[in-house]
Amino acid sequence: MVDSNLVQQSGYGDDEYSQQAVELIRQQTNNPSASIYFVSGGTQANLAVISSVLRPYESVISAATGHILIHETGAIEATGHKIEAVQSADGKLRPADILTILEKFEAVHMTMPRLVYISNPTEIGTHYVREELIALARCCREHGLFLFMDGARLASGLCASDITFPDLADYTDVFYIGGTKSGALLGEAIVINNPALQPNFAYTLKQRGALLAKGRLLGIQFKALFTDNLFFEIGAHVNRMAAKLVVAFSQLGYSFLTKSSTNQIFPILPIQVIQELQAKYDFYVWQKIDDQQAAIRLVTSWTTQEAVVDQFINDLNQANEQALVHVTVASK
Amino acid sequence: MVDSNLVQQSGYGDDEYSQQAVELIRQQTNNPSASIYFVSGGTQANLAVISSVLRPYESVISAATGHILIHETGAIEATGHKIEAVQSADGKLRPADILTILEKFEAVHMTMPRLVYISNPTEIGTHYVREELIALARCCREHGLFLFMDGARLASGLCASDITFPDLADYTDVFYIGGTKSGALLGEAIVINNPALQPNFAYTLKQRGALLAKGRLLGIQFKALFTDNLFFEIGAHVNRMAAKLVVAFSQLGYSFLTKSSTNQIFPILPIQVIQELQAKYDFYVWQKIDDQQAAIRLVTSWTTQEAVVDQFINDLNQANEQALVHVTVASK
Amino acid sequence: MVDSNLVQQSGYGDDEYSQQAVELIRQQTNNPSASIYFVSGGTQANLAVISSVLRPYESVISAATGHILIHETGAIEATGHKIEAVQSADGKLRPADILTILEKFEAVHMTMPRLVYISNPTEIGTHYVREELIALARCCREHGLFLFMDGARLASGLCASDITFPDLADYTDVFYIGGTKSGALLGEAIVINNPALQPNFAYTLKQRGALLAKGRLLGIQFKALFTDNLFFEIGAHVNRMAAKLVVAFSQLGYSFLTKSSTNQIFPILPIQVIQELQAKYDFYVWQKIDDQQAAIRLVTSWTTQEAVVDQFINDLNQANEQALVHVTVASK
Amino acid sequence: MVDSNLVQQSGYGDDEYSQQAVELIRQQTNNPSASIYFVSGGTQANLAVISSVLRPYESVISAATGHILIHETGAIEATGHKIEAVQSADGKLRPADILTILEKFEAVHMTMPRLVYISNPTEIGTHYVREELIALARCCREHGLFLFMDGARLASGLCASDITFPDLADYTDVFYIGGTKSGALLGEAIVINNPALQPNFAYTLKQRGALLAKGRLLGIQFKALFTDNLFFEIGAHVNRMAAKLVVAFSQLGYSFLTKSSTNQIFPILPIQVIQELQAKYDFYVWQKIDDQQAAIRLVTSWTTQEAVVDQFINDLNQANEQALVHVTVASK
Repeated sequence: MVDSNLVQQSGYGDDEYSQQAVELIRQQTNNPSASIYFVSGGTQANLAVISSVLRPYESVISAATGHILIHETGAIEATGHKIEAVQSADGKLRPADILTILEKFEAVHMTMPRLVYISNPTEIGTHYVREELIALARCCREHGLFLFMDGARLASGLCASDITFPDLADYTDVFYIGGTKSGALLGEAIVINNPALQPNFAYTLKQRGALLAKGRLLGIQFKALFTDNLFFEIGAHVNRMAAKLVVAFSQLGYSFLTKSSTNQIFPILPIQVIQELQAKYDFYVWQKIDDQQAAIRLVTSWTTQEAVVDQFINDLNQANEQALVHVTVASK
Repeated sequence: MVDSNLVQQSGYGDDEYSQQAVELIRQQTNNPSASIYFVSGGTQANLAVISSVLRPYESVISAATGHILIHETGAIEATGHKIEAVQSADGKLRPADILTILEKFEAVHMTMPRLVYISNPTEIGTHYVREELIALARCCREHGLFLFMDGARLASGLCASDITFPDLADYTDVFYIGGTKSGALLGEAIVINNPALQPNFAYTLKQRGALLAKGRLLGIQFKALFTDNLFFEIGAHVNRMAAKLVVAFSQLGYSFLTKSSTNQIFPILPIQVIQELQAKYDFYVWQKIDDQQAAIRLVTSWTTQEAVVDQFINDLNQANEQALVHVTVASK
Repeated sequence: MVDSNLVQQSGYGDDEYSQQAVELIRQQTNNPSASIYFVSGGTQANLAVISSVLRPYESVISAATGHILIHETGAIEATGHKIEAVQSADGKLRPADILTILEKFEAVHMTMPRLVYISNPTEIGTHYVREELIALARCCREHGLFLFMDGARLASGLCASDITFPDLADYTDVFYIGGTKSGALLGEAIVINNPALQPNFAYTLKQRGALLAKGRLLGIQFKALFTDNLFFEIGAHVNRMAAKLVVAFSQLGYSFLTKSSTNQIFPILPIQVIQELQAKYDFYVWQKIDDQQAAIRLVTSWTTQEAVVDQFINDLNQANEQALVHVTVASK
Repeated sequence: MVDSNLVQQSGYGDDEYSQQAVELIRQQTNNPSASIYFVSGGTQANLAVISSVLRPYESVISAATGHILIHETGAIEATGHKIEAVQSADGKLRPADILTILEKFEAVHMTMPRLVYISNPTEIGTHYVREELIALARCCREHGLFLFMDGARLASGLCASDITFPDLADYTDVFYIGGTKSGALLGEAIVINNPALQPNFAYTLKQRGALLAKGRLLGIQFKALFTDNLFFEIGAHVNRMAAKLVVAFSQLGYSFLTKSSTNQIFPILPIQVIQELQAKYDFYVWQKIDDQQAAIRLVTSWTTQEAVVDQFINDLNQANEQALVHVTVASK
């Protein structure tokens, strides 16, 4: 028996747990030649992938709601790259959006679009279906663009649609599987399908400070998620809890900012109802609609218990009734 | 009771564990106004601190053996900054080294040195003593330079010298405490002492992908390290194990590449002895000395058991005897 | 007499011509403490100023039509900075636009807006008047933002409005005077009014490759432009030539994409008229309006002769008549 | 006749003069498929070429005296790339230097060397001969490295050696021809020989602010330099003037810091002689040798008149005599 501590440990992702997690993901995606790396967060995954794929004069196309455009403190631009934003009401990109960007391109004086970034589910709760993914992938390949899927909430996204892991291997060049938002302590698994994008990716990770010395910590998370179907159970659970909330809001006649079957929902509520709920719950007011209403964001997670959802619905019903009383009184 | 999962969690380092760890470190350093952030690794800590402190035309001074110059895949340059290397036999910087760099400076045509980076212990096992730290700090302040200490192995460094945590608060502008190499699963604690360097550091972390969504994972590590003196116990243990090895090598007449009282030692051994040991142990051959000898690197850790060290010494003694026989035979 | 060629020449902008040009511009702007630097082009001026002013996590606000967003191949992002785009029909920014950006700001997760970039005239021919400039400057100061004016076509802009050079000193933190588009062989003069932004700017220029060894070449251009009122004569000429064209288009009943009093005009013409004109003139079709019409861009310059403008108007009238015939025939 | 000013001019290097200059350089180098671009200065040329060739995790090898390491204010690092410095007494790189760097390379944890940067002549006046260039080129090709020659002073370098322009096409992947230091007002001609490095280089130039709107200014310079042998006449002249100085210093028994046959020489003189000469000439004291001597740098240019060189030599002889008197007196 040799003590592993007098010696150089096998670090930086070459440990046994990480290797097992890699094999499990290769099996899930039915892609034995995928390159797989674990990093500690979503912004890190995005900046590593994008800066690794693009040459300095190339840009990435994203919906205007894309996480890389809104909530990453300019992380992509900090690696030197421009993001071309596309307005999209539901946060999804379609071939027509890509073509619009390509048509306005002028050689030399503009950055060359090279990568299409999509989030699935999107930042506003919508998700792609298989047909949409295939159409987008075809458009990308026709025009020499790479397709990258940010899967920070992929468990919820896959459980809400007909897209499978092997589809992701077939139709994206690279994607990542969110662990942090699927019950893991931390970690995102970057899966590089396109062999042209595989070489030297570890250098990018190291240079960006994304290579953990004790990579086994990340490997353990993903080994657990892909053992005994845990990943999909979590996805199903969060979607089911969100769906209960959707039904409750709908029954009270409330509408939504976007149509979501995933674990993020955006009901539009009267300010008074929002204030009532805020007294007991801490959530994010996403967008003001008018003087009387706003859309809030609710997110369910793997630890969301059904009893708590039921309690929330009770509280919602009460807040709604009080608001009605208030409206009645006010209108007298 | 409100379920924390229907709501926005307090993430990104604002959790209870992280706050407790911050307070423990503030107490240790006797600096209640220190800004403290936890990140997942050393390269990340280095690139975040350096790119946060410097303006684009400013550079950092480092010993030529500095981790940022050798083993971080150009992470600092990737943030746009030049490192001015100083040759130093023992890996330490002294005021004279700083002055040499400053004297050769030419305005406009050269980057302006602004930050001095030191590792304590150094990458080659040496460490600073209090007097050296004070002299360096004074030199930096006189010349408008900031002083940054990379403490990836700080537990070992502090236990080997008369420098205390309050000294680090007094004499460095910023330093970090290595968790990864001190028994933590991951994590480095960046301590910003100089108030001028504190504002907006969290933006840098977020932009570099260094802000963990579930920051409590890091907080828990440091809370444990600074409870019940664990950090110092680990430092004392690794140094004691390394010291036993130093004695053993010395008794056999071997010399060392550098004089180390920390947990990294660099004995110079005959190739044959190295090969014997490699059959049972996996370590790093650091530097070829000549055709017959090389320096190896041995590192002790918090899990290094004394029995294993003793076994290693036994194996070393045997390998040494065989080598002597070999030499005798060869010389006949 | 000592030969200047056996010796180190005074280069990099310290030559006599450059110094004289600096003094002339200080007099024009009535700001004796302005820092003034000459660079060879507009993209260079923009990237040097913006990357010099901003910290890595800070961003610049620009109208969506801004040159830095459209025609600089991601030069600003290549220095690591995000540009916040504001939709603006006439290409100008107003205080309300700034406030919209500031309101959506979320600390740490978004870049911090710090600099407002405006072009005067804008890329679509409109220009600011004094009152607008003052309002924008006040808004910027109230919110801790710097104001930067891209004056690539400033000669035309100043001659079209009531803004004076001393106004630019009073109300912008930094601006540049376009030489390239005002008759100079090359060169833009960057004028830094805000003392806080003056230190070390030459380092940025050198690092970005923008410091010409023989800077006198640039100094000579600006000395000429600011001697004998040449700069304003050129501005008045280009505006007058453009105004003649505007009258001609208007008399034929054509409308314009934007209301311009500067040297860039954007008449909306039938495709057939455009094609007729393209047979003799080489201009840019700026934007498709519908299946039958498009906006073209016409730019007058210091070498545009009135006789040529008259000839163009003749040709336009003929093309217009033929198009009318064509329409009449087609509608039969 | 159509006025070129009502229309979009053919700018950005597509003008007639630039095209003619390109053809002249293609003929000189006997490489009709070379891609050739004109930029305004050497730092700009270096940063554009290097950042265009390298991926983010790749580095460039340079002699420690290389201009990119010493006098470009970190311009290369500002594009994100590390420079691997090699100590070299004469400022030249040889295959053994390259191998030393490659041998110490450790995958993932170090940047991957990919480009070798040499200056010819070097910054300390030495130059390469054909055999050396071929050996270096072979070494680079064997190890998958590109070879880039900084030819800021190439006129002097080619006139001092047996290397021809066609050799540069055969043995470098990219090089540039210095115009600024060869009599041009400004300008360096970047010649990309390796077809793999040619695509999209104009995007890099535009993004770095290096694409002049009125590119003809640069084209005119190079058209003149490569018409009627002017480039070589200038090279021969500056070398001849420098050689006269070398003879004069040698006859007085002075030695040199480096052995130079080009237009930069580094004689080592007594401090007193330096001070005498400084009273009449303005030159650069390059390096202190000891308390009594220093090396100075003298540079001849295309405008250096022989009469002035003769006068300098006279003044030198006088200063030398006085110093001897001084020494005699002092030693009494």
